[in-house]
Amino acid sequence: MEMSWRFASDNTAGVHPAVLAAIAAANASTAPSYGADTVTARAVALLRAHFGAAVDVAFALTGTAANIIALAAMLRPHEAVLCATTSHILADEAGAPERFLGSKLVGVPTPDGRLTVPLLEAATWPPDDPHRPLPRVVSLAQPTELGTVYPLSSLREIAAWAHAHDLLVHVDGARLSNAAVSLGTDLSAFAACDIDVLTFGATKNGALGAEAVLFLNAALAAPRHHLQKQAMQLTSKMRFVAAQLTALLDDDLWHANATRANQTAAALSAAVQPLPGTTLAHPTQSNAVFARIPRAAAAHLRKTYAFEWHPESATARWMTSFNTTDQEVTTFATALQRALQR
Amino acid sequence: MEMSWRFASDNTAGVHPAVLAAIAAANASTAPSYGADTVTARAVALLRAHFGAAVDVAFALTGTAANIIALAAMLRPHEAVLCATTSHILADEAGAPERFLGSKLVGVPTPDGRLTVPLLEAATWPPDDPHRPLPRVVSLAQPTELGTVYPLSSLREIAAWAHAHDLLVHVDGARLSNAAVSLGTDLSAFAACDIDVLTFGATKNGALGAEAVLFLNAALAAPRHHLQKQAMQLTSKMRFVAAQLTALLDDDLWHANATRANQTAAALSAAVQPLPGTTLAHPTQSNAVFARIPRAAAAHLRKTYAFEWHPESATARWMTSFNTTDQEVTTFATALQRALQR
Amino acid sequence: MEMSWRFASDNTAGVHPAVLAAIAAANASTAPSYGADTVTARAVALLRAHFGAAVDVAFALTGTAANIIALAAMLRPHEAVLCATTSHILADEAGAPERFLGSKLVGVPTPDGRLTVPLLEAATWPPDDPHRPLPRVVSLAQPTELGTVYPLSSLREIAAWAHAHDLLVHVDGARLSNAAVSLGTDLSAFAACDIDVLTFGATKNGALGAEAVLFLNAALAAPRHHLQKQAMQLTSKMRFVAAQLTALLDDDLWHANATRANQTAAALSAAVQPLPGTTLAHPTQSNAVFARIPRAAAAHLRKTYAFEWHPESATARWMTSFNTTDQEVTTFATALQRALQR
Amino acid sequence: MEMSWRFASDNTAGVHPAVLAAIAAANASTAPSYGADTVTARAVALLRAHFGAAVDVAFALTGTAANIIALAAMLRPHEAVLCATTSHILADEAGAPERFLGSKLVGVPTPDGRLTVPLLEAATWPPDDPHRPLPRVVSLAQPTELGTVYPLSSLREIAAWAHAHDLLVHVDGARLSNAAVSLGTDLSAFAACDIDVLTFGATKNGALGAEAVLFLNAALAAPRHHLQKQAMQLTSKMRFVAAQLTALLDDDLWHANATRANQTAAALSAAVQPLPGTTLAHPTQSNAVFARIPRAAAAHLRKTYAFEWHPESATARWMTSFNTTDQEVTTFATALQRALQR
Repeated sequence: MEMSWRFASDNTAGVHPAVLAAIAAANASTAPSYGADTVTARAVALLRAHFGAAVDVAFALTGTAANIIALAAMLRPHEAVLCATTSHILADEAGAPERFLGSKLVGVPTPDGRLTVPLLEAATWPPDDPHRPLPRVVSLAQPTELGTVYPLSSLREIAAWAHAHDLLVHVDGARLSNAAVSLGTDLSAFAACDIDVLTFGATKNGALGAEAVLFLNAALAAPRHHLQKQAMQLTSKMRFVAAQLTALLDDDLWHANATRANQTAAALSAAVQPLPGTTLAHPTQSNAVFARIPRAAAAHLRKTYAFEWHPESATARWMTSFNTTDQEVTTFATALQRALQR
Repeated sequence: MEMSWRFASDNTAGVHPAVLAAIAAANASTAPSYGADTVTARAVALLRAHFGAAVDVAFALTGTAANIIALAAMLRPHEAVLCATTSHILADEAGAPERFLGSKLVGVPTPDGRLTVPLLEAATWPPDDPHRPLPRVVSLAQPTELGTVYPLSSLREIAAWAHAHDLLVHVDGARLSNAAVSLGTDLSAFAACDIDVLTFGATKNGALGAEAVLFLNAALAAPRHHLQKQAMQLTSKMRFVAAQLTALLDDDLWHANATRANQTAAALSAAVQPLPGTTLAHPTQSNAVFARIPRAAAAHLRKTYAFEWHPESATARWMTSFNTTDQEVTTFATALQRALQR
Repeated sequence: MEMSWRFASDNTAGVHPAVLAAIAAANASTAPSYGADTVTARAVALLRAHFGAAVDVAFALTGTAANIIALAAMLRPHEAVLCATTSHILADEAGAPERFLGSKLVGVPTPDGRLTVPLLEAATWPPDDPHRPLPRVVSLAQPTELGTVYPLSSLREIAAWAHAHDLLVHVDGARLSNAAVSLGTDLSAFAACDIDVLTFGATKNGALGAEAVLFLNAALAAPRHHLQKQAMQLTSKMRFVAAQLTALLDDDLWHANATRANQTAAALSAAVQPLPGTTLAHPTQSNAVFARIPRAAAAHLRKTYAFEWHPESATARWMTSFNTTDQEVTTFATALQRALQR
Repeated sequence: MEMSWRFASDNTAGVHPAVLAAIAAANASTAPSYGADTVTARAVALLRAHFGAAVDVAFALTGTAANIIALAAMLRPHEAVLCATTSHILADEAGAPERFLGSKLVGVPTPDGRLTVPLLEAATWPPDDPHRPLPRVVSLAQPTELGTVYPLSSLREIAAWAHAHDLLVHVDGARLSNAAVSLGTDLSAFAACDIDVLTFGATKNGALGAEAVLFLNAALAAPRHHLQKQAMQLTSKMRFVAAQLTALLDDDLWHANATRANQTAAALSAAVQPLPGTTLAHPTQSNAVFARIPRAAAAHLRKTYAFEWHPESATARWMTSFNTTDQEVTTFATALQRALQR
């Protein structure tokens, strides 16, 4: 039986047809390179329509790069980042941020991936201690790597605390669309939370490979093109990256895609919870389901379904995508049930 | 009158239709991410068919990144690179290589962009001088940034000299297809020149954004995926990058594309040379024409045609692409002639 | 009443008179710079006499630098270090190692500052996972930052495990003399533990500012002078750094100095233990006493004695030095007793 | 016959006795570490007395480090430095600045080591070109590596031009005392030239190993202690570094030392100029004599006198120091004369 990658990640899903169409449409003629073209201008205009007219933008090709460009605009190498120990930038980037930035990333333990003001209070240190780097940025992900979502009020609280302590706020929005749908807000709601730099991920939302770095704090935007170049993201044929974002932002395709992903995750979560021996490890608030299941069941299920498995806590991660079908969820839940019954 | 970007660069040309078709074809189903998919496997197989069965590969999204991954595999931060002062890695990357590598790039002046053994001999320094970095890599571009092409014998000579001096050889092949067509060789000819790491650029050859780093020296290949990640190039939907390369390597589309670019450059060069007040700055050996023209003519021509202009030497650069037409060359040559006659 | 810095650290103690005399003696005439002088040659010879004839040496001016030079010789930027979460390189260097090396330092929690093979086993990860850096070095301190000392057998065990997993072993020996005295060994005993690079700290042993990086693994020594330069440690008047080491290594002054420090720490530890409300936080194995004392007593004592205080665990750190007197220990123990009785 | 290092460099001379005395005097008792002691406070006060009451200071152990701390306070990694191609930071530091800073250093050719506004005008580039790093700092050395000295008016002119172009000014003052004596000014004269960060070298002036980074632009001073730590210069026993500066600044010993070095250089220059076959390569304005001499004479002389020799231009460099005697100059001039007569 062939291995299914359906629930392994939201990046196994391929590209939404509208995105491919937008790429093809951008290919009509010659055009200036490095982002001086009209497609890129339109993508910036659309992002400003969603996030605010004053927003400055840099495009990136990977989520790793989007976060690093964002952080590079906020940090000098002697300055440090506070982030959850489970954060992608700290745990899953092979040290790419540290290598490029020269800065230290300091992990803050959290119960469910979400930072809070008391957790940050306890984790920070005096800025005049030369034996430790200078704290400068609070970085959080919305949603988190554990699928949990910050209420807007939490984002505002953290931002207020950060700014009161001369810290800037970075939000990794690789799945920001899923958070917006989860909270029932539009994208501009995040721009109203006093965040300094926010990334907006299109790749997991149906793009081929396109991310946007949004400079909500205008004072940080100036070096964005130099940083884009240094981060190896200033692709010559930029229009084809920008086209992907136009496809998702036109007619709110981003919203439809995230809605489908979140709904199928909710359906999977609901199907999984009643199963004996199974408990949710974290609440299902976006497009990720984290569940603790018996090791033997996991081993059996992994013969036909690829997914992240954390053996030390016996926790599985199942992700849904913009094109996950209800049928696929049902089939998978049945397979899980069978694995549990063996 | 609208500005034409036709001859501004070979990256203003958009994407070859076969590349778009290959991307669409790769979108059939879910697939594992980060390069563990079958499209990526086929691209690697095709690259091995062209460059040698033992070659290891890392894909990149930009030429900047491809060169940096290559150099990162060859260098430690206290080691230095010898390269032409005109080289892209030294002059046009905003310091991206130095920032990522930590290494020093040392420019060697050349008459036409090409390094030679005597030039390298004169530029190097004792490896035991702790006041200077340790020389470790000779980096050259094939073709060079000035459109000139190294004969295969020169590549072999430089490699022999380098290896005799405990130096490795890196070749920036952003336009390697154009060099192969210029020399009348296939791609494997370069792999036979004792180069250690070679990049193969697809973007300028008709791709959307895809480059390959080819580890000809197997001892250097081990960290390639870590470096790909750290260089922010480990895109999750890797199959769509790989698909671009398969399109160009299948049926030798790379060769047809480079042939068209080189032929139109040769035609433009031939049309330009007889014009009064005009001299070629460098021989036209690939898809770039460098010509010295009067400043007034350049200023006039630049009202309708975008191109690189070096005011200090009154030199214009005109690039052709995989889809430049004969008609476009004729029209441009006429416009140049008129500008010269004013 | 004036604040006493006596027990605040072993670097508040000033310089041993024999070290000052050696510096003055090195000033007799002009001499070649950057370490090509006879005093430096003699210091290298003395280090070889103590650590092994094949040892290569680089001198450094600070302990931070010595460890960074050692690690730079062992690591490439995509490679990572495993070290105790309490280690100096991770917790007390303001991110200097990460900035210079580009590498990630990964903290391993320990009960008493000492790594063990099972702790390392649990902390490592697959070398072929490109989402995490490549594990390359195990770094430990002898003694640890908590004053505990590894038995030689533990060092050998860790080294055997590391080498079996393609990892190198770095030992931070900022207080190596104290460990040698604690174990009753000479310095050569450490060189016999299959360590790759070891630092030997003179500053805390009575020098003004001098450390030695000892390359026990000859394959790693080649770039040491380039790294010394890049780490800003290639001081022009190197003979005055080397002279400090000659003073401590001649006539085993290092041993006498460390013996005094360890003995006074043991005396302080013995005096402290019976006091009500006081417990040792870690065994006293070198020249550091860690004790849990009531917060009120600590606050009172800190009005006249400066020392490190960890409020979250109510733990004090008291350090002794090469010139701590028995009388000073008695006076301090009395002051502590009074503070506890208030 | 033994090799003489007398004229090889100004760092072959050893330490002035008053400096050794100050070190010994600083050793009276225990003292807080890392610069929180009274000797360090006094050194800062003396530097403020000489350079201005508002100056902030960071100490360093080597000249390499002093310049790197200065530049790190002025630069972010995407920003570049303009400096003379002959500058020490570019040519003689083994890439240490690039490695630590991540920034690019761009060499500007000069006739005699001195930058000028027209040379800088010609060398700079548009700040909005993302293919090149962002120009941010003009770095010059006073005196230059060629022994030439900028008039104060030139420093002011360069600073005015730089600030008008949003650039900061760094001055490498490894031999600033020699420049002050050459110009007949006190040290405060440099602080009045609108320089942003200036280093003041004590090592070549008679110290053991001590440099000061002077933040004349107060807006740049905040991270100085973090940078000092990251640059591996936050030595624990800082008082012994500070003591060296107090010795030189008390009673204007710095001035007497530089005067002797400059006078003996002038005497050597005067003795050399009339010799047949010998021409000064650069005017003798500080404590360096650069002379073109026949290669055979150089080869003979180098059997007994060590000195820098540039074979491509047949140029010798001879340096004098704080304790060079008139007799040594006479003896050397005679040896040169004999070598020329062979």
